[in-house]
Amino acid sequence: MTERLYLYDTTLRDGQQTQGVQFSVDEKLAIAKMLDTLGVDYIEGGWPGANPTDSAFFEAVGPTRATLAAFGMTKRAGRSAGNDDVLAAVLNAGTPSVCLVGKTHDYHVDTALGIGRDENVENIRASVAHCVAQGREAIFDAEHFFDGYNANPAYALECLHAAHEAGARWIVLCDTNGGTLPGRIGKVVSEVIAAGIPGDRLGIHCHDDTGMAVAGSLAAVEAGARQIQGTLNGLGERCGNANLISLIPTLALKEPYASRFEIGVSAEGLHSLTRISRRLDEILNRVPRNNAPYVGASAFAHKAGLHASAIAKDPATYEHVDPATVGNERIIPMSNQAGQSNLRARLQDMGIEVEKGDPRLLEILREVKEKEDIGYAYDTAQASFELVARRHLGRLPAFFEVKRYRVSVERRKNKYNRMVSLSEAVVVVKIGDQKHMSVSESMDETGSDRGPVNALSKALAKDLGPYQAAIDDMHLVDFKVRITQGGTEAVTRVIIDSMDSAGRRWSTVGVSPNIVDASFEALLDAVNWKLVRDAEAP
Amino acid sequence: MTERLYLYDTTLRDGQQTQGVQFSVDEKLAIAKMLDTLGVDYIEGGWPGANPTDSAFFEAVGPTRATLAAFGMTKRAGRSAGNDDVLAAVLNAGTPSVCLVGKTHDYHVDTALGIGRDENVENIRASVAHCVAQGREAIFDAEHFFDGYNANPAYALECLHAAHEAGARWIVLCDTNGGTLPGRIGKVVSEVIAAGIPGDRLGIHCHDDTGMAVAGSLAAVEAGARQIQGTLNGLGERCGNANLISLIPTLALKEPYASRFEIGVSAEGLHSLTRISRRLDEILNRVPRNNAPYVGASAFAHKAGLHASAIAKDPATYEHVDPATVGNERIIPMSNQAGQSNLRARLQDMGIEVEKGDPRLLEILREVKEKEDIGYAYDTAQASFELVARRHLGRLPAFFEVKRYRVSVERRKNKYNRMVSLSEAVVVVKIGDQKHMSVSESMDETGSDRGPVNALSKALAKDLGPYQAAIDDMHLVDFKVRITQGGTEAVTRVIIDSMDSAGRRWSTVGVSPNIVDASFEALLDAVNWKLVRDAEAP
Repeated sequence: MTERLYLYDTTLRDGQQTQGVQFSVDEKLAIAKMLDTLGVDYIEGGWPGANPTDSAFFEAVGPTRATLAAFGMTKRAGRSAGNDDVLAAVLNAGTPSVCLVGKTHDYHVDTALGIGRDENVENIRASVAHCVAQGREAIFDAEHFFDGYNANPAYALECLHAAHEAGARWIVLCDTNGGTLPGRIGKVVSEVIAAGIPGDRLGIHCHDDTGMAVAGSLAAVEAGARQIQGTLNGLGERCGNANLISLIPTLALKEPYASRFEIGVSAEGLHSLTRISRRLDEILNRVPRNNAPYVGASAFAHKAGLHASAIAKDPATYEHVDPATVGNERIIPMSNQAGQSNLRARLQDMGIEVEKGDPRLLEILREVKEKEDIGYAYDTAQASFELVARRHLGRLPAFFEVKRYRVSVERRKNKYNRMVSLSEAVVVVKIGDQKHMSVSESMDETGSDRGPVNALSKALAKDLGPYQAAIDDMHLVDFKVRITQGGTEAVTRVIIDSMDSAGRRWSTVGVSPNIVDASFEALLDAVNWKLVRDAEAP
Repeated sequence: MTERLYLYDTTLRDGQQTQGVQFSVDEKLAIAKMLDTLGVDYIEGGWPGANPTDSAFFEAVGPTRATLAAFGMTKRAGRSAGNDDVLAAVLNAGTPSVCLVGKTHDYHVDTALGIGRDENVENIRASVAHCVAQGREAIFDAEHFFDGYNANPAYALECLHAAHEAGARWIVLCDTNGGTLPGRIGKVVSEVIAAGIPGDRLGIHCHDDTGMAVAGSLAAVEAGARQIQGTLNGLGERCGNANLISLIPTLALKEPYASRFEIGVSAEGLHSLTRISRRLDEILNRVPRNNAPYVGASAFAHKAGLHASAIAKDPATYEHVDPATVGNERIIPMSNQAGQSNLRARLQDMGIEVEKGDPRLLEILREVKEKEDIGYAYDTAQASFELVARRHLGRLPAFFEVKRYRVSVERRKNKYNRMVSLSEAVVVVKIGDQKHMSVSESMDETGSDRGPVNALSKALAKDLGPYQAAIDDMHLVDFKVRITQGGTEAVTRVIIDSMDSAGRRWSTVGVSPNIVDASFEALLDAVNWKLVRDAEAP
């Protein structure tokens, strides 16, 4: 017998408390759509009345598969629930579900609210009853519950009972400051259930201040709670909320949860997880965490040479779930710890078959190792690695040769007496017997100087003869520079990420004491990789 | 009665499996020093013999407070432990402790090793015995233990017993693919102890593939294990290893751990945690995670308006630990008051006294905020921050003005038909009424081209008139470049670290779409900071 477990997403409300995050209405709508695709049970859209964006979101959002919830607080003292304008604004959003936060920690009732403890209990009861009377599903969000329960368990429970008796569908136990450890969470949830609040009415709301929000949520479920609150990518105040992106695959795929519980996320929803996680980062203009559980770019990357041969035999032995189930993929990067089997597996992924024991495998490994010793990084720059391998395997056509280049940067006052800079590049390229000489400058449409690498890139692309179209089709999406030790002295390592209209994305590397030279090397690799892949395309 | 709990750091070995991470020997030495300051019990330095960097590290590292451990694998079949050259290389590193990985999962013995199961048990026994006979502390690293125990508990235990009987000080249960959940980890550890391996000989090695490596480690400790393996910032393959930076404060500050266990990290070590975490990111040129438990820049940032007044009354109610204990600080972005007192404290650190309520404090805060919005990073570039403040406070003399500069990079064949590059810079500077024009190229003593920034730096330094001596006394020690969002589009942020003969080290920042221009801005700040500090010196 499976039991139903409910997922309550608060990305749009508690997730908005993340430092540096401020959603627009459009962003909220886009995220709500993703959440609905994913298959969470509840989407908490915000606090209507508390800020204009949240109110506008509730007006604009259409029908959703998930239950929409509006957040607010229990009525204030000294007025009836029906006469509290803050509560009225929340109800006016017209959502089927309403989540009201209230105090359950006596200390906060005394100091923050400054009202009588009984009065607080009455506020909870009356507010929940008012929502229910309006035909809404009421959820009571018990703020600071775990600290409150530690300090005064009888009072904390009295608050929960008030909400329960008034008809709350869910009572959510919040670990507001994130300090309660999973073991304690499990114990308290058990005690709450023993005190008469049924587990299938209990929710858990954890924060990641000790790095255990996911574990704390699962501890509550094991103790009997049946609703989990969390956010996409663990957004939220301070260290964030419980990360639903991590929780969902564990619940769906791993025992003891997979066979004990049923969740609203289908196999398709699960498959969209990686895409949704990265899309959210894109909306927020954040760099996705490579090491994020399940969905990170490195989550299924196998580096150790020792492991690689075993992985080739049976990937399942080094992977706790199949990356495809969450829409992610396996990566076997190159590194100086890689062995020949790692190398062959990697080449195979690139569509290059090499016989086991081929002596050229050793040559490739030797060059990779030598170059990594002087600063190259082939586990990041996979496209540059492919070019190294192709050169050894005789599978890299000589498309063109750069004979020389010159680039200059000048900074001086313009006619309006403002300091401006300009870069200019000349590149001389030989294609077959033909010499091509191009010049370009770095000004963009806005008149801003994009620098010497931009000028070089444009000059190189400008007249690559038969390859012009291929080059025009690619653009630079990221550029990373670091100083690293190249043998005895510091050199610059440049990594360039490129993309083309087919949606391919590839990374190349250049190393030199001269940053412009290192950049140019990475740029040439990027162009060559594009040409070789286009030439091999059917 | 407190019990001793041991922390085993494997940043330098398993942490090196992180995609994109490749430590140099110097970086390994710097990290080992940080680990020793922090107070971990073991520092695993790498696999001597398996790669040259690790061997060089063991040769170069001096005495440490922590026990140094070398990593390797149990002897191969068909030879004695004394005749296995791989094992010999590990022992030759001469570390007091030796950690050997071996198989305990029957499937891997059959398929990966392809040897008899008894032979594998014998390899474990003989290898551990050999280390002990050589006077070393032996640690057995039981690879894939949890999966092995699920598949064939009797065989997995037989492997552990072989190591135990042969005299292993520690037997480390590894959840190699990171798929075992905390509840299961606790249960298996209990069963292993019940089967006769004492808990004070058991270690736990977790990975973060479900986001629960910290919780899994603590579950093992609760079941009786007494050694935790992990890495700084949770570095490691795929999703990383258990994060010691998160685990240590929980063990040191939070119940039930704080009063049950004693760890080697002192209050001072704990206080260095935030610094160490960020310094590691700096070494790796990574962006520190703002939401990292305990040490993240947002870990104690309070955004919610609802909370702000309560926080002002008593911060402890919204913080599970005092941020100062881990060397972090509270951020209340709402409060200008907090911003101003923070700023005054920072200026005081720089020897600049400003009255409380001085209106220029607000001006400084405004400029810092505006410039951070377009990509500047004053947390890192303290010297540039000081210059901003001094400008507003009228305490920045106009030493010189750069009127214009030009720098070129040329790459062509030399007379020996080899590609060489050369950079040349011209800088025009005005000091008082005097115009100085200097030219310099970027060739170093070895004939290698150090690039355009080097040429600019030399040209600027060449003829700074009265400031020549001060400039000659400084040199660039690090140079970090990152692409960041400057308002609507990507810009380059350059951070330069400089040093002088007095041992002062300072960081400056420049931001521009043009990398050379951003570098030059940071360079000018570096020079100006040096001049202002020298001018104020007694």
